Amino acid sequence: MTINNFFQFLVPKDKKFFPLFEKATSNMILMASTLHEVVNMAPADRHEHFMKIEELEQTGEEITRKINLELSKNFITPFDREDIYALTKAIDNIAGNIYGASSRMRLYHIEKITKSIRKLTEINLEACQNIDAAVKELRDLKKIKKITDACARINKLENKSDMVYDKAVADLFENETDAKNIIKYKEVLSVLESAADRCKSASNVLESIAVKHS
Amino acid sequence: MTINNFFQFLVPKDKKFFPLFEKATSNMILMASTLHEVVNMAPADRHEHFMKIEELEQTGEEITRKINLELSKNFITPFDREDIYALTKAIDNIAGNIYGASSRMRLYHIEKITKSIRKLTEINLEACQNIDAAVKELRDLKKIKKITDACARINKLENKSDMVYDKAVADLFENETDAKNIIKYKEVLSVLESAADRCKSASNVLESIAVKHS
Amino acid sequence: MTINNFFQFLVPKDKKFFPLFEKATSNMILMASTLHEVVNMAPADRHEHFMKIEELEQTGEEITRKINLELSKNFITPFDREDIYALTKAIDNIAGNIYGASSRMRLYHIEKITKSIRKLTEINLEACQNIDAAVKELRDLKKIKKITDACARINKLENKSDMVYDKAVADLFENETDAKNIIKYKEVLSVLESAADRCKSASNVLESIAVKHS
Repeated sequence: MTINNFFQFLVPKDKKFFPLFEKATSNMILMASTLHEVVNMAPADRHEHFMKIEELEQTGEEITRKINLELSKNFITPFDREDIYALTKAIDNIAGNIYGASSRMRLYHIEKITKSIRKLTEINLEACQNIDAAVKELRDLKKIKKITDACARINKLENKSDMVYDKAVADLFENETDAKNIIKYKEVLSVLESAADRCKSASNVLESIAVKHS
Repeated sequence: MTINNFFQFLVPKDKKFFPLFEKATSNMILMASTLHEVVNMAPADRHEHFMKIEELEQTGEEITRKINLELSKNFITPFDREDIYALTKAIDNIAGNIYGASSRMRLYHIEKITKSIRKLTEINLEACQNIDAAVKELRDLKKIKKITDACARINKLENKSDMVYDKAVADLFENETDAKNIIKYKEVLSVLESAADRCKSASNVLESIAVKHS
Repeated sequence: MTINNFFQFLVPKDKKFFPLFEKATSNMILMASTLHEVVNMAPADRHEHFMKIEELEQTGEEITRKINLELSKNFITPFDREDIYALTKAIDNIAGNIYGASSRMRLYHIEKITKSIRKLTEINLEACQNIDAAVKELRDLKKIKKITDACARINKLENKSDMVYDKAVADLFENETDAKNIIKYKEVLSVLESAADRCKSASNVLESIAVKHS
């Protein structure tokens, strides 16, 4: 039991952090699903979606700001301050990487989307959905199994993402003759793989919160 | 109000951390301004400045070490330990990135400095000056507006840096035919852009300290 | 004296964290020494060693998980929670980078191992051995000199690693004509250099723990 757990008995149910976390994960899912749509549509149709992802990224930054502000203003928090901070940062980083992938595709004029890119955007979407599911369980920490199950799925997805990335880069070296293209595709693949890493960071925090309250 | 805020009423004004923070930001500004001079001078004159930046980086590391030592030895600190740690790390990282940009330019024999590189060194210098201004305000946390204004400017500069970087890399892919040059310039641009990211990290900590004490 | 130091007088000697830390550093050394063997053997013999490093990386992740679980379950820890967390993360990152170097060599079919690569794997092995020696001293914090000496050696090794890396990349730009090879070798060199950076992170935590208890 931590100091925060102890104080919780003294304070009413949190009405500030949970709604903000849920806003943050909904926004993150929307970014991940928009990007997954982008890589499955014709190049000519993508522009509008790129713009939407950019807007969503700004919305996400605004939510992050609000959470950090609440964190600064409140001595009592629904769970440990460092966990709130770490979870918020992980979600912010996932969003940043999704936006990064989107803007690289746009700026480097990546028209041909490879199978590996599609697999990675799918993995990220699924990982984001699991983070969102786990975050919703934080309101009632009595059934932590749902959280730990979601985290197990996220960790498996991250492992899969590693393998897809490694193979994709090895393929680039093997089959792509234009060094410029190798660099461009590696940039897109690596930021997508990074997003999965950040999902795992979020999963680690969620698991730690669950264990502390079990 | 945090535990640290509470203890502060019991202890005399801090005489250890503030002077060290100010030393660290002065040193960081000097690094940023020396690098901005480098990119505006003839290649033949740069060597001496590269060496100066290397020396300043070592001075900076020494200051970081001293702050961390004070942090380890003192139970009572002028504001939250994790904020001191995070601010120190951010400043150390900014200095590390400025040095990284300088040593890459030197080692990769980058003679032709592009407009984007010059813009980025200018953005970093301005961001460092704003960090320094905000850090000086930490001594008297009654007028936090000066801090939050400096932070708003730093965040705008970081956004600008992102845009300059993205455009510069897209330009490289569009106009540079030599893959080796693409890699070299991307390395220099990315470490400059990273420096602006770290300035934003410093700004986030400064904002958080300001809000906690308002 | 921190809150944790104070509580330590009340609790029996830790029997959970120390054995796990020592398991983690032994595993990390084994990874570093296996990689150093790999770069000194004929390409045809490497496959088995690559597989061994992959297995060890999984063992390491399991140990990390156990430490984080203990951290979540125990209010009283042998030293500050954030230091345990940071030390565990640093060791985990070192192992991740060693594995990363190993899998890149394998996947990119890097047959010709350069002198710089060999130097870097040697530096990493030596740094890992020093981390292990310092971690063993944590059980009895009365003789911190052994810890601070090990940390001083790690910091020197990290500086050396920086220089080897910088020179190796500059050499690639100077002497390698195939851009694809530049990218491949830079990937391997940079993850090896990253490992040394993480060793320095571990060293910083160890030094901080030592100072707090002196």
